Amino acid sequence: MEGQKPNTGVRGNQSEIQVSEPYRAANRKLHPADTVVDVSGVKIGGGHFAVIAGPCSVESEEQILTVAQKVKASGAELLRGGAYKPRTSPYAFQGLHDQGLKLLCKAKQATGLPIVTEIMSLEHLDLFADVDLIQVGARNMQNFELLKQLGRSQKPILLKRGLANTIEEWLMSAEYILAGGNPNVILCERGIRTYETATRNTLDISAVPVIKAKSHLPILIDPSHATGLPWLVEPLSKAAVAVGADGVMIEVHNNPKEALCDGPQSLTPEQFDHVMQSVLSLVQFEQKAM
Amino acid sequence: MEGQKPNTGVRGNQSEIQVSEPYRAANRKLHPADTVVDVSGVKIGGGHFAVIAGPCSVESEEQILTVAQKVKASGAELLRGGAYKPRTSPYAFQGLHDQGLKLLCKAKQATGLPIVTEIMSLEHLDLFADVDLIQVGARNMQNFELLKQLGRSQKPILLKRGLANTIEEWLMSAEYILAGGNPNVILCERGIRTYETATRNTLDISAVPVIKAKSHLPILIDPSHATGLPWLVEPLSKAAVAVGADGVMIEVHNNPKEALCDGPQSLTPEQFDHVMQSVLSLVQFEQKAM
Amino acid sequence: MEGQKPNTGVRGNQSEIQVSEPYRAANRKLHPADTVVDVSGVKIGGGHFAVIAGPCSVESEEQILTVAQKVKASGAELLRGGAYKPRTSPYAFQGLHDQGLKLLCKAKQATGLPIVTEIMSLEHLDLFADVDLIQVGARNMQNFELLKQLGRSQKPILLKRGLANTIEEWLMSAEYILAGGNPNVILCERGIRTYETATRNTLDISAVPVIKAKSHLPILIDPSHATGLPWLVEPLSKAAVAVGADGVMIEVHNNPKEALCDGPQSLTPEQFDHVMQSVLSLVQFEQKAM
Amino acid sequence: MEGQKPNTGVRGNQSEIQVSEPYRAANRKLHPADTVVDVSGVKIGGGHFAVIAGPCSVESEEQILTVAQKVKASGAELLRGGAYKPRTSPYAFQGLHDQGLKLLCKAKQATGLPIVTEIMSLEHLDLFADVDLIQVGARNMQNFELLKQLGRSQKPILLKRGLANTIEEWLMSAEYILAGGNPNVILCERGIRTYETATRNTLDISAVPVIKAKSHLPILIDPSHATGLPWLVEPLSKAAVAVGADGVMIEVHNNPKEALCDGPQSLTPEQFDHVMQSVLSLVQFEQKAM
Repeated sequence: MEGQKPNTGVRGNQSEIQVSEPYRAANRKLHPADTVVDVSGVKIGGGHFAVIAGPCSVESEEQILTVAQKVKASGAELLRGGAYKPRTSPYAFQGLHDQGLKLLCKAKQATGLPIVTEIMSLEHLDLFADVDLIQVGARNMQNFELLKQLGRSQKPILLKRGLANTIEEWLMSAEYILAGGNPNVILCERGIRTYETATRNTLDISAVPVIKAKSHLPILIDPSHATGLPWLVEPLSKAAVAVGADGVMIEVHNNPKEALCDGPQSLTPEQFDHVMQSVLSLVQFEQKAM
Repeated sequence: MEGQKPNTGVRGNQSEIQVSEPYRAANRKLHPADTVVDVSGVKIGGGHFAVIAGPCSVESEEQILTVAQKVKASGAELLRGGAYKPRTSPYAFQGLHDQGLKLLCKAKQATGLPIVTEIMSLEHLDLFADVDLIQVGARNMQNFELLKQLGRSQKPILLKRGLANTIEEWLMSAEYILAGGNPNVILCERGIRTYETATRNTLDISAVPVIKAKSHLPILIDPSHATGLPWLVEPLSKAAVAVGADGVMIEVHNNPKEALCDGPQSLTPEQFDHVMQSVLSLVQFEQKAM
Repeated sequence: MEGQKPNTGVRGNQSEIQVSEPYRAANRKLHPADTVVDVSGVKIGGGHFAVIAGPCSVESEEQILTVAQKVKASGAELLRGGAYKPRTSPYAFQGLHDQGLKLLCKAKQATGLPIVTEIMSLEHLDLFADVDLIQVGARNMQNFELLKQLGRSQKPILLKRGLANTIEEWLMSAEYILAGGNPNVILCERGIRTYETATRNTLDISAVPVIKAKSHLPILIDPSHATGLPWLVEPLSKAAVAVGADGVMIEVHNNPKEALCDGPQSLTPEQFDHVMQSVLSLVQFEQKAM
Repeated sequence: MEGQKPNTGVRGNQSEIQVSEPYRAANRKLHPADTVVDVSGVKIGGGHFAVIAGPCSVESEEQILTVAQKVKASGAELLRGGAYKPRTSPYAFQGLHDQGLKLLCKAKQATGLPIVTEIMSLEHLDLFADVDLIQVGARNMQNFELLKQLGRSQKPILLKRGLANTIEEWLMSAEYILAGGNPNVILCERGIRTYETATRNTLDISAVPVIKAKSHLPILIDPSHATGLPWLVEPLSKAAVAVGADGVMIEVHNNPKEALCDGPQSLTPEQFDHVMQSVLSLVQFEQKAM
């Protein structure tokens, strides 16, 4: 993109502004206006609060269709579901792969919800043609070859923060995608690894306003992975609204106890509906206040 | 065990309930009702959102009086100010000591605001007779001899979380005070130490709902120490409201650039006034929603 | 492989032993004997202390040949050099890629030293045919698709520990390779991310005896990346010997000040020679003591 | 003290040297020669490797006498034993207090070993008159009032590193004691808090050569608390020798299974004897090599 400055993503005269940060295309000083990423009609960034919901893994047609309809009814605007799963153990359920992607597409046709799912290898990119928002998981945040490949596409990318990566490293990974020519990057804070064990990870809520100050990119919160505890999803989703996040991503499963992956941290559709009422009411209050 | 059970703080038949946690007096399973601590007329806990504000250190009569009047006008209900300062360096300003305590008392007389200040040694306890809320700082969270001494008093205690202490260790430190016979403990989350350097510490916002689930004790957030950045105080104070904290403690200085301690993270009285409007408006919304 | 148990890598009757750990093929309880990996004639594991040395990046034919000859003269048995470099910034030197691999092969021909270099994408695997030991870097420790691909090869793999990964997660990543059918895995501890900033990372020296107790796989120490400080390479390499590591990997550059990557942490060939004398003398002492 | 420079502890013309570090009295640039602390005849620092051993807590006369005699026979030069114990829980065994100090003195009389024990409050200082080396535990590393008090004494002080304190903060705590006029400070690295759970804490072995470069103070390693696992004491004690530590402190109990505190991490006297042979043999080798 952008003729003679393919590496920096810097447009026009702004390239003459000196910045001390190592990121340029992601830098708000060089690009003051909020980036708004259009995910098949759903705008992420720029004042709208978007909710992504769905199961950790796609398990069956019935499961993904049921969850999709329920979360849509409660107000979710995008459907998440894992087809390729990064599992610590090679013996754990690894996802339904291309079959999972097909089931996601069916759920999309049935509900109209754009779909979000994780890519684990650049070799799979062709299979993701119908995916609306491609997730790069925490473990691949510094898989630079994957980031370069995604930079050559125009697909919206959801870039999760690595387990032990600084905010600056995270923005540098976004920079890989932006500098490659793809401006459609959405960040997602999902908790960092600390010594505390009361929660699965430690949600770094401050990352939201810090990112908003340093960058023009939208940022979401994933309270499900951040804490691993379903009863923390409501307070942390409200905190996400209060600090100015552009949305949340929440795990919802029709039967958490039987889920093949991360069941214990999933909400039931009924719990999700309750959370949504509370969260959307706060969103409304905040928007009036602005 | 132990005859009339002086060590556990467990009252009546509740002592027969079996709990797996090592804390008993602090345990919500044994004491379901929220503890409300009365700090010279200001109730902390139980649904009210309290704001403590003031400078890191008391520096002069003019300074503390000015700040006290301003923060009161903006809606703060308690005045903080350090007289004994725990400084990393022996060559840094160590506080005005007993003189600082006297100036705090003057500010209390002038404004009616109860005062909050940190104790650094059990030898100083007698000097703290007029202090309304005695703070135990993060570095002394496991100074067990100090905790035992405070357990023998009836003074309200503000127990800050240690830099690298788990939530369970924190509750065990509260247990030292409660088991000694002093039920007036308020917890304060002030950020934990992680690898991230964009903020001074990492605010563990999840600690608030986790504490609310595990314990009946009130819990505050200190966004000033958690982040070290004044522009993060507003979003994080709003997050504190959103997750159900019982209040915040905020550093305010009449002249942050000249402050003898932690100036860079202090708000001016004008900035604080702006934060208060935003925070109290959210508090009002949340209380209606309940 | 192995008929009806393709996923576990467990051989013969040992599969009937019950273990509580989630790793089986990597588990010493199921495979008591030390694994010795033959890297083109150099044995790693089983009591021999191996030294890998070379520059962070291959920069030119002269550079890699010079360094290779010098480190060989000092007693190194394998040559390292990066051709594909995982850089935090997309604007930093990314390595000479296939050209770098060719230069490494020239250095191998000239010196006879087997070569070690990092793979960053499974798409590159064919280019690594002449590489003797393929490194998986810390950032890719949980790039599971890459691990699966390497499990289908028989190449020796050097699996570095992720920046914030537990020892158990590390062994599970090794398990991905082993379970795929490739038994040639060597672990490398290179420092973990903590709050301490005096060193680039914190070397977890205890990981060596912990791995030795839990697994039969060889384990090396990388003191250069663990600390980022060249003057710490000698004491930490000696510590590696003292705790029973199977070797070290050390960065050596003919001109650290001009290096295109990680120069400040590299030793000069002269410094490396001094370190080797000290380390090999300790190795000799330890072997006599056994 | 020291006329016009009471706060810095800097002697003579060296005060004119400019240093960028915030510590002066502890700074090797200003005091190049190794400090050697004389603990009732045992020299710590300056090339001698000292071993402190004994139980976590003094439990009875028989216990402490037995352990003292055994560890002396194996080559320990100082006896440790806790009388005031910093326990996370108020309901856990808190030590025998002054009675424990008396039993330590009996063991000292019987064996001639100088004694090391932890102080938890400045109020107890008078009781410690016969203690040869006063330990400040990790939880009190930033109990500045205690440090100031110890700075006014001339007693040798063993200053353990705080659980989450940087090396610089640790040196600043040493500076509190030195600046007060007490030059007899020995540092002790006992593991820092990280996300890893395979060991109780993470031993920061690099801290030894880092401290040696930055400061002239002696530094010991405590492998027992660093790992919480008795079988790691031998390899980590050898690592301590290899990196140039001035000694180790090791927990030994006559009956670890029945110990009132930290039994699981204690060695039996027989295990300790085995460790000592291995460690002292390495010490001898290193001293010849120098």
